[in-house]
Amino acid sequence: MARRPGRPRASGDPHGERDTRQDVLDAAAALFCSVGFTSTSTRAIADAAGVRQASIYHHFAGKDAILLELLLGTVQPSLELADALVAAPEPAPARLWSLVHADVALLAGGPVNLGVLYVLPEVAAEQFAPFHVLRARLRARYSELADAAAARSEADDRGALVLGLVESVILRRRDTPDLDVPVVQRSVADAVLRLIGCTPTQIAAASTPS
Amino acid sequence: MARRPGRPRASGDPHGERDTRQDVLDAAAALFCSVGFTSTSTRAIADAAGVRQASIYHHFAGKDAILLELLLGTVQPSLELADALVAAPEPAPARLWSLVHADVALLAGGPVNLGVLYVLPEVAAEQFAPFHVLRARLRARYSELADAAAARSEADDRGALVLGLVESVILRRRDTPDLDVPVVQRSVADAVLRLIGCTPTQIAAASTPS
Repeated sequence: MARRPGRPRASGDPHGERDTRQDVLDAAAALFCSVGFTSTSTRAIADAAGVRQASIYHHFAGKDAILLELLLGTVQPSLELADALVAAPEPAPARLWSLVHADVALLAGGPVNLGVLYVLPEVAAEQFAPFHVLRARLRARYSELADAAAARSEADDRGALVLGLVESVILRRRDTPDLDVPVVQRSVADAVLRLIGCTPTQIAAASTPS
Repeated sequence: MARRPGRPRASGDPHGERDTRQDVLDAAAALFCSVGFTSTSTRAIADAAGVRQASIYHHFAGKDAILLELLLGTVQPSLELADALVAAPEPAPARLWSLVHADVALLAGGPVNLGVLYVLPEVAAEQFAPFHVLRARLRARYSELADAAAARSEADDRGALVLGLVESVILRRRDTPDLDVPVVQRSVADAVLRLIGCTPTQIAAASTPS
């Protein structure tokens, strides 16, 4: 992942600080997912990003801080959408469908499969608590939306089931690297509504044309 | 994971070869899932298993061979059950429910969460092809059973959706180490039947009392 030559700089950022930061994140993401987190040194990240190793420490406390930022990026956009959807006027099945549709795109659509990093032994450590807090909040939002959209009330672990089906795209993408993301987005969103007991009519009404 | 002192030996195996082999697998599983695969040496496995390093190489070609055997063990029992269930006389929803129920127990019930090893970068390598072949066969069995049990035919990726929901217990167990496995077995098995469009009556008939 070599630095793109002649890449334009943002006008308010003449020294390219934001570009450097993003180049480091991109390079680290690619290395963590291909070589592995443990086997990747900050030196290797610097080489792949085309920056000096000192530049990495200017932006990040270290490898853990880079991993944390990457992990947060796999949840934050979906959580922001979920927070907005909880109060939106659309019927609950449509709001849940939209959230699943967007979350699957986030997990399955980026340049690398960052979700595989969720199960790293290192991620259980205290310094990754902000990631676990965010993901627990997303799970709670799924639970709220699923409870509001559900036809029946027998499952009291709906949030975990729904998040599980959404995040199953992580392993699916690993099995099929050239996944057809728009097809999988609709398939998983429809499946989530079936899982919580919505009728075919409700599902047809909830899904939006892509 | 210290070697249990005074552990009885199988009668037909006076030198404890099978015990040594299993001790190595158990110790490696615990280390791979806690310390990580890359960070675990065969020396560390030998120490944890209470055997000499040479004993490991008597049983396994190396660390990759140990990992392969552990991975095969997370699929082989479910595949054998699936092969038997495909030809069994029970209605398809009941057969699918039984397979999910057993597979969730296999993934969520062992002493360590071996499923987290599925996403290791190393597992993409050629020497792990036997694992990927077995898992693809299990996915195909899920697809067959789900097609036979399904009320409607709109989803042509049922096998992937169902296997995804089953394997979602890997991340769920990571989030909640003290998961109530019998409860999750029933919850996921019921959810799989809802996902493929079975009615509450069909699901009640398919699920067996535990």
